[in-house]
Amino acid sequence: MDERAALGVLGERLSAAGDDCAIVDGQVLTTDMLHETTDFPEGTTRYTAGWRAVGASLSDVAAMGAEATAAVAVYGAPTFDETELLAFVDGASDVCSAVDAEYVGGDLDDHAEFTTATTALGRTDDPVRRSGASPGEAVCVTGTLGRSGAALELFEAGETERANELFRFEPRVRAGTGLAPHATAMMDSSDGLARSVHQLCAASDCGAAIESPLPIDDAVDAVASDERERRELGAFFGEDFELVCTVPEADLPAARAAVSCPLTRIGTTTADGVTLDGEPLPDRGYSH
Amino acid sequence: MDERAALGVLGERLSAAGDDCAIVDGQVLTTDMLHETTDFPEGTTRYTAGWRAVGASLSDVAAMGAEATAAVAVYGAPTFDETELLAFVDGASDVCSAVDAEYVGGDLDDHAEFTTATTALGRTDDPVRRSGASPGEAVCVTGTLGRSGAALELFEAGETERANELFRFEPRVRAGTGLAPHATAMMDSSDGLARSVHQLCAASDCGAAIESPLPIDDAVDAVASDERERRELGAFFGEDFELVCTVPEADLPAARAAVSCPLTRIGTTTADGVTLDGEPLPDRGYSH
Repeated sequence: MDERAALGVLGERLSAAGDDCAIVDGQVLTTDMLHETTDFPEGTTRYTAGWRAVGASLSDVAAMGAEATAAVAVYGAPTFDETELLAFVDGASDVCSAVDAEYVGGDLDDHAEFTTATTALGRTDDPVRRSGASPGEAVCVTGTLGRSGAALELFEAGETERANELFRFEPRVRAGTGLAPHATAMMDSSDGLARSVHQLCAASDCGAAIESPLPIDDAVDAVASDERERRELGAFFGEDFELVCTVPEADLPAARAAVSCPLTRIGTTTADGVTLDGEPLPDRGYSH
Repeated sequence: MDERAALGVLGERLSAAGDDCAIVDGQVLTTDMLHETTDFPEGTTRYTAGWRAVGASLSDVAAMGAEATAAVAVYGAPTFDETELLAFVDGASDVCSAVDAEYVGGDLDDHAEFTTATTALGRTDDPVRRSGASPGEAVCVTGTLGRSGAALELFEAGETERANELFRFEPRVRAGTGLAPHATAMMDSSDGLARSVHQLCAASDCGAAIESPLPIDDAVDAVASDERERRELGAFFGEDFELVCTVPEADLPAARAAVSCPLTRIGTTTADGVTLDGEPLPDRGYSH
């Protein structure tokens, strides 16, 4: 059974699962595990790892339209080097500070592979789920797409300083709370834009017609050798942590005014089917 | 740097760390990572693994005297077998139900080694810390000691059914909330009784004179070959999840009345030093 099938099985068993966070008494709770072989390419600093791992969980809080309250992390590694450990903690603390949350510690684990598990807690009386979209609404995305894909190319090319910078993203918590009163459905783009749109449409029982140009990050232009690679990194690669949401047409100006980051309309929800420029948009992306 | 030294470094950096849970706005939050090579001996079922991993985090909630609200877990494994995955989820759900908490899901991770990361959330307006004990108070422990040590011996002997049973403990959440109004300091015994008493005394800046007999579990008697091994499994081995607490003499009857499990007085806090029957009690136990 692959990870997607397994998630499907879990979704049937656990009523609280299946969104970016579980909802518990006016709070949202989410957990993630990242580890060296799949998530932290050679050259990733421990500061970046702490920032990124905790940031991934904070992004799930943002995707519910919640304020971020606190985060914890487990640091699992074969050895505990003081400099590396404190760099991880500093990265974790700094990403929390960036979104007004508190990093409150966690646990250590003696682990053969560098492995982190992060959990974030948020607060909202009115969470935005993936399932509220209807046909005829604007599909929007915050910020730009493809930073992480570009970062991986740069890690491979040995340009680790710039790659680390791109790997440290600011979780869209402020945008999420700003969008919450306007968005009918929301999730983060951690599995890639294409898969995220598919997931949101599946949860909402609708479709979406996406139109280019997509807001692809300049960093992608700097590494992509052609338009195909540019689109691959921007639309499919994933591991980006932008918000994908649907907003009724009439609310779009208010939604834009409510966020300080770019909010790009990339399409319109439809009755069914997910297309890009009129062609079917494959449901593929990053599985993790 | 070993794990204890690393925890010391973290405690200096993070003001919210250093107790069984972090305290956030009337809530307590804790996270743990367990994995195959160190925590789940051959023969541990996935049901037991789910129960035990989530139970370990719920035990930390209990140790703060908090009600348990919810838990999440990451299931990391090389393959996702539906039967194993659902068994894990059932174990996680059942241990939550046993303490009136809700298991609300988590994440999957494709991981070379079977690895779980669990997080539990609890609620209390008046958390019991490790640091509140004073000389002259009763030192008490809930339940019996050594179940996990005995279980490991049984796993090695191939008696996996009984070993799995012993590995599934009921987190002491009810005892924790019952003890909270009476206890001056509390923690769980996951590092072993000896180390737990040392940690509680260090946090409270006091000592403790522990007296035998300790409430060692019958399962230990069934596997220990002599008194030395019995004491080793009961006092030092750890990975038990009982509560160790200090209670003023006058409150002891009320504390006993407030819990439905056994509460054994095992000694008295002193000005300094930790002894067992008058001899120094070594500060050693399970580091994990």
